[in-house]
Amino acid sequence: MLGLAGGTAGLAGLAAVGGLAVGRSTAPDPGLTAERRVYPFTGAHQAGIVTPQQERVHLAAFDVTTTDRAALVALLQRWTTLAARLTQGLLAGPDGFASGPYDAPPDDTGEAADLPASGLTITVGFGRSLFLGADRATDRFGLASRLPDGLIELPHFPGDDLDPARSDGDLLVQACADDPQVAVHAVRALSRAAFGTARVRWTQLGYGRTSATTTAQSTPRNLFGFKDGTANIKAEEPDALADHVWVQPGDGSVAAAWLTGGTYLVGRRIRMTIETWDRTSLREQETVIGRTKREGAPLSGGGEHTAPDLTATGTDGAPLIDPDSHVHLAHPSSNHGARMLRRGYTFTDGNDALGRLDAGLYFLAYVRDPRVDYVPVQDALARHDRMNEYIRHTASALFAIPPGVPDVAPDGSLRGAYLGSTLLA
Amino acid sequence: MLGLAGGTAGLAGLAAVGGLAVGRSTAPDPGLTAERRVYPFTGAHQAGIVTPQQERVHLAAFDVTTTDRAALVALLQRWTTLAARLTQGLLAGPDGFASGPYDAPPDDTGEAADLPASGLTITVGFGRSLFLGADRATDRFGLASRLPDGLIELPHFPGDDLDPARSDGDLLVQACADDPQVAVHAVRALSRAAFGTARVRWTQLGYGRTSATTTAQSTPRNLFGFKDGTANIKAEEPDALADHVWVQPGDGSVAAAWLTGGTYLVGRRIRMTIETWDRTSLREQETVIGRTKREGAPLSGGGEHTAPDLTATGTDGAPLIDPDSHVHLAHPSSNHGARMLRRGYTFTDGNDALGRLDAGLYFLAYVRDPRVDYVPVQDALARHDRMNEYIRHTASALFAIPPGVPDVAPDGSLRGAYLGSTLLA
Repeated sequence: MLGLAGGTAGLAGLAAVGGLAVGRSTAPDPGLTAERRVYPFTGAHQAGIVTPQQERVHLAAFDVTTTDRAALVALLQRWTTLAARLTQGLLAGPDGFASGPYDAPPDDTGEAADLPASGLTITVGFGRSLFLGADRATDRFGLASRLPDGLIELPHFPGDDLDPARSDGDLLVQACADDPQVAVHAVRALSRAAFGTARVRWTQLGYGRTSATTTAQSTPRNLFGFKDGTANIKAEEPDALADHVWVQPGDGSVAAAWLTGGTYLVGRRIRMTIETWDRTSLREQETVIGRTKREGAPLSGGGEHTAPDLTATGTDGAPLIDPDSHVHLAHPSSNHGARMLRRGYTFTDGNDALGRLDAGLYFLAYVRDPRVDYVPVQDALARHDRMNEYIRHTASALFAIPPGVPDVAPDGSLRGAYLGSTLLA
Repeated sequence: MLGLAGGTAGLAGLAAVGGLAVGRSTAPDPGLTAERRVYPFTGAHQAGIVTPQQERVHLAAFDVTTTDRAALVALLQRWTTLAARLTQGLLAGPDGFASGPYDAPPDDTGEAADLPASGLTITVGFGRSLFLGADRATDRFGLASRLPDGLIELPHFPGDDLDPARSDGDLLVQACADDPQVAVHAVRALSRAAFGTARVRWTQLGYGRTSATTTAQSTPRNLFGFKDGTANIKAEEPDALADHVWVQPGDGSVAAAWLTGGTYLVGRRIRMTIETWDRTSLREQETVIGRTKREGAPLSGGGEHTAPDLTATGTDGAPLIDPDSHVHLAHPSSNHGARMLRRGYTFTDGNDALGRLDAGLYFLAYVRDPRVDYVPVQDALARHDRMNEYIRHTASALFAIPPGVPDVAPDGSLRGAYLGSTLLA
């Protein structure tokens, strides 16, 4: 499935690789600093999914404000060119940020003009409301019959406390980079290109693997102080990616075959009630998670990367890993083998009126079918997870992520395909 | 004034330097990566002021919830020990994040346990309401007579659109680091130590010099796409720091002599109306700023670091730098020589209900006397700056920053002095 042999391009990468239908690179030259990494834009799949997780994310969901299908197509075409340019370290347009007609706005806003590509990836998705309208009955663009089977309305899970204004949307942009200003610049450029066609519904910033953890190849810690991501699907597991991430030929209805090679993105804003957590004992914390805090080792023994033994019992006959611990409930063996490619980021959005930090995990997971790989797992967690005492899901999103764009010109001009062209062309 | 020769300590830095009354280091070994930088905690001045600007800031203002002066002193003592430990790469307490009694909460919350100090500095300040009460008439701690002369109530400037919930406060913590998780961890640790004594009033995150710009020593760009900070006071200008940053012996009343060696911090949350800016011409943008967008050169000619010639005129006799441009109005020669040590950060706080980015500059400036070095400048800007069409001040803060702590033990234990002891001891 993956072009695992693909390397990274230099800063002039688009010129070098733009004409080639290269696969998604997942293995950048480890000698490159984070700022110098450039991931190819073109490929069978969109970048930003199996790409090694960058340090920052800026998510932006948009609502389309037109009913003109041609305008939607034109927007996706503009976004494709912009994404191709920005990810390769180019500015938003050929005149840059400080050239061109003096009495016109510059092509580029300029705040990232001195910054390298910083591993930027831009990933675009389609929400259920793009197909059905926000009222679930307005087929604005003639797309209702092509709604992907997995692009369901997520059920209300026990404990959900969702803010509609921070949930869902017609379109999603996920911009990931190792520099926050580069990610923010990308969202701003795409927002600017959407003027008159779509407007921002919600945005979310997050940070994750920091420089230090990236260098050390250690698993980063979340705001509970625990390592997070130990048992994730890895880019080097092509069978797992085929089974659990990429939509396969024959998945779903014929009318939804346009999503083949794509995937689904589940987003959940999970606020952590940190002040409460911080007053609990180390025993409670490890019991809730099912792992040790220091090493991240399962409480059944071994090291961080030892598989949890959910049946192991202690001398008192009680299970070493609590059946209602997060590790037990989220484990594939508890969920008919369901797995996800997780790509979550920590967020810190100031504080609430009571002075408590509004912080937690923005959970992002890519799955082949949310009905199989996400809903049952979250349903079990929402009902039984001991962690629920310390978290609250405050926003939710589900997007179909179309396949990648196989080819663009070196300057980002289209050569036929664009993001979503399998659906809209 | 400055211990410019001071180097940086290793990760075991506290043990090495804790017993020495070292000056503030302003010149880290350039061979160190950002993550490995450790700035001394002790010194005549607090760190985080002339310290080279780190990549991230997390500001947190607190309101004291007790009227017990001893509890306030105890809080500042705990904060001193925590700041001394965390800035040197130690965890919040001796038992760390995953040791100690199994049935007690760990000393440290753990999310930064694998991360180095990352250049962390923690700077603490006192707001006017600490002295006078939020009602300006409640001398809770017997401090009213010791109110520093410069800790005024800032005037309402034309155009101010301030949110009281995001402004002011009794205490301020400025945590700066090259890793966001390290800065957030510091604020969390100090918030936790404040439980029962003070609670968070507002917080603000920002990012600034990114890895790439730090390496290249180039001036970073703000969200207007212009270089920001070209004409700042530099740590290598001891006369300017004495004249415009550090409170000098004899400044103000005798009762406020405790602030000698300290300074004042002015904070202004300046939202940029980016969408409007992005639709203006390059001509308008350069006229508003008074500099070129690409180089940051003054429109009177030369390069980025050429002094602006405010009197230069073009062939048409009109001034090359517009009299109402930002550069003209903010220039020391337009303000009786007023200067500030600026330390601002870009912020991106999601979007508003209209889908516009809630983003801009969190202006931070350290000044010897806000009445001399800040108020007149801001008054002129608020009345005349052409930039006002594209910005809005949405929050404001002014804090007195006490002098540094000359000495602590290697484990952060106090040796008499603490943050604020010149006021409270």
